[in-house]
Amino acid sequence: MVQTSAYDWWQRPDLCYQGRQLLFNGRSVENLASELGTPGFVYSAGRVRDNLYRLRQALETAGLGDRSSVLYAMKANRYAPLLTLLKQTGLCGIDACSPREVEHAVSCGFDASDISFTATSLSPQDYAILARYDGLFMTCDTLHAIQSWGQLKPGTAIGIRVNPAIGIGRVGNDKLQYAGCGTTKFGIYREQFQEALEIASQYDLTISKIHFHTGCGYLTPQLEQLDRVIEQCQWFINTAGSVTRVNIGGGLGVPHLVDDQPLDLQQWTAVLNKHFASNDLHLEVEPGDYLVKDAGLLLVSKTYVETKRDTRFVGVNAGFNIAPEPAHYGLPFQPVPLHWDSGSPMTPVTVVGNINEALDVWYENALLPDLADHDYLALINAGAYSASMASNHCMRGEFKEMLLP
Amino acid sequence: MVQTSAYDWWQRPDLCYQGRQLLFNGRSVENLASELGTPGFVYSAGRVRDNLYRLRQALETAGLGDRSSVLYAMKANRYAPLLTLLKQTGLCGIDACSPREVEHAVSCGFDASDISFTATSLSPQDYAILARYDGLFMTCDTLHAIQSWGQLKPGTAIGIRVNPAIGIGRVGNDKLQYAGCGTTKFGIYREQFQEALEIASQYDLTISKIHFHTGCGYLTPQLEQLDRVIEQCQWFINTAGSVTRVNIGGGLGVPHLVDDQPLDLQQWTAVLNKHFASNDLHLEVEPGDYLVKDAGLLLVSKTYVETKRDTRFVGVNAGFNIAPEPAHYGLPFQPVPLHWDSGSPMTPVTVVGNINEALDVWYENALLPDLADHDYLALINAGAYSASMASNHCMRGEFKEMLLP
Repeated sequence: MVQTSAYDWWQRPDLCYQGRQLLFNGRSVENLASELGTPGFVYSAGRVRDNLYRLRQALETAGLGDRSSVLYAMKANRYAPLLTLLKQTGLCGIDACSPREVEHAVSCGFDASDISFTATSLSPQDYAILARYDGLFMTCDTLHAIQSWGQLKPGTAIGIRVNPAIGIGRVGNDKLQYAGCGTTKFGIYREQFQEALEIASQYDLTISKIHFHTGCGYLTPQLEQLDRVIEQCQWFINTAGSVTRVNIGGGLGVPHLVDDQPLDLQQWTAVLNKHFASNDLHLEVEPGDYLVKDAGLLLVSKTYVETKRDTRFVGVNAGFNIAPEPAHYGLPFQPVPLHWDSGSPMTPVTVVGNINEALDVWYENALLPDLADHDYLALINAGAYSASMASNHCMRGEFKEMLLP
Repeated sequence: MVQTSAYDWWQRPDLCYQGRQLLFNGRSVENLASELGTPGFVYSAGRVRDNLYRLRQALETAGLGDRSSVLYAMKANRYAPLLTLLKQTGLCGIDACSPREVEHAVSCGFDASDISFTATSLSPQDYAILARYDGLFMTCDTLHAIQSWGQLKPGTAIGIRVNPAIGIGRVGNDKLQYAGCGTTKFGIYREQFQEALEIASQYDLTISKIHFHTGCGYLTPQLEQLDRVIEQCQWFINTAGSVTRVNIGGGLGVPHLVDDQPLDLQQWTAVLNKHFASNDLHLEVEPGDYLVKDAGLLLVSKTYVETKRDTRFVGVNAGFNIAPEPAHYGLPFQPVPLHWDSGSPMTPVTVVGNINEALDVWYENALLPDLADHDYLALINAGAYSASMASNHCMRGEFKEMLLP
């Protein structure tokens, strides 16, 4: 494995340079780009499984193995082969947030009873479709939702999404905070919780689950805040009285920038055990990013290299519309060359896409070697919230997808 | 026409309350919502034509009628019936930015010779497709593009997109500025212009057009800046020597907020005449927003009304994924009721969508009447950069579209 200060933070045994070639899951990425065509998303089944096993193992090690579930947040990436792969592991269920997601998960092999459903602003048509799926577990995030579901499914067990009024998320990224100082649309606050219980009671609904999700992309430094969030949620668990499961949402992050450190899962389970070791509540966690983000590369073709004034631009044949996170959420995807000689001189370049918009910039001041004999680049960490959020803006929406077994 | 301080800024003869009903292009919007289903985009052919006629008329009145062209920026809205409608007026061509856009425009009735093509980061495959269209006019935005096109089409006329190094756009919205202090990927700067002319000369290309586009959504207060931008571009026109056409880009805005005033077209043409009255250059303008933004409504169904702590939320059955401007570009769509009694008490509500993301908010503190007997809302100014940028995020990407004749 070649290591340099510019490229060592993201290399790992299944994604690294060997000799000159970048290998991913044992395959030459240059060959993949050439075979698949670009733009193309390549997902590694091995990495997805590793991420899932690591998470399960951390829960096992912390003594939570038998009383915890992992639910994949399929909104992160709904590529059908990936969903079937996850079902085949037998180690995770699904977090779905729309009727079409439920239909799609079932079409990929999941049972309705594998699916935990948590959404917002459902229509009567949505409720009618969802009610068809026996075993689907519904979490309600408004008083209105409790009433709507109660009318269709009286006497059943439901979850309530609560809003602890404090948020958590990647520092400096308020777009990814779901609860906090301002009042958000998500979940039921303390002030309305008693009324929620009364409405549930009217329809003989049992509140068996409390759900909260308060931000995305947290790493180890944010675990103190997760601790405070769970602390706030204890009140809801105690007040409901009938709770057997707690869903702590998703939001487990992966390193995005050179200074990021991976989430310390031992510290993460320590926070869970602090709150849940002494009771027998079943814990659910809903990762999206954590399972698939670093298991995906976006392969693009170089279109030009040209200096304009003080900036050296590298153009590629894909724009932010097929992977909106870098442009819209301030989470750039590091571009990396598909072959590389250790010790090559590196220069800062700005990698830009093919959309006529000022924000269509993949990465500013990326360190790259001379690209004269390069046809392609790979953008790392493109496995989540990329293809699943793609648009056909400027009619530039075409791309390939591929799962490496 | 019912007028109140909350609702008077956006009402106009073809979009206003008559009696209790909101009418659009002479049709009851409530009936439209009921017939079409929601979420649905409804576009008014009449309003699009009015916008186009107004722009043409302003150019005529300023003595620029015979020496100006309007090119519709189809990236704003590529709904096929709308493109055919625009072709049928005989009053505009097309600004296209990708090979698929060219194919689509031609499939809707435009000739290749109606199309001005200006894009960025084109691939060899892109150039090969574009070269098939006889009459398509290519504007190049890099030295590399001049070379690539020159190899395919030596001896032809081209445009050069230049970067005047100053920008223009809606105040406070740097996402919509395309040129300015920082170096952007767009166009060729002064520093590289001589080299651009030399490369063109190698391929016997004639530079017959100078193109610039430096921002979006400008209104009357920004015309001083447009003046300065054109001033900067004179150098390129003079230096090229062979220019017969000048394309001043798009960016003409429409009012979005209660305090916005419509762009004063007489002042706009005065800026053009200041620079171009004394020569015989043909002028091109590429509006997108100006032609279609206020000609479109997004019709949504109310899903719930509920107070959480200090905020009254109105949920609807559509999220930011089908119309990203409000969430991602800070340009909220005013929600309006489909029926309304003048003098009804109004209260501030926050209108939110059905996507599990914190930024999925349509409008904060919108003044709306009691919605107990309302099934729907309309979001105004949804005719541009909405459906054309829609994604299937959370598998909530389904919507209807309709052109009112």
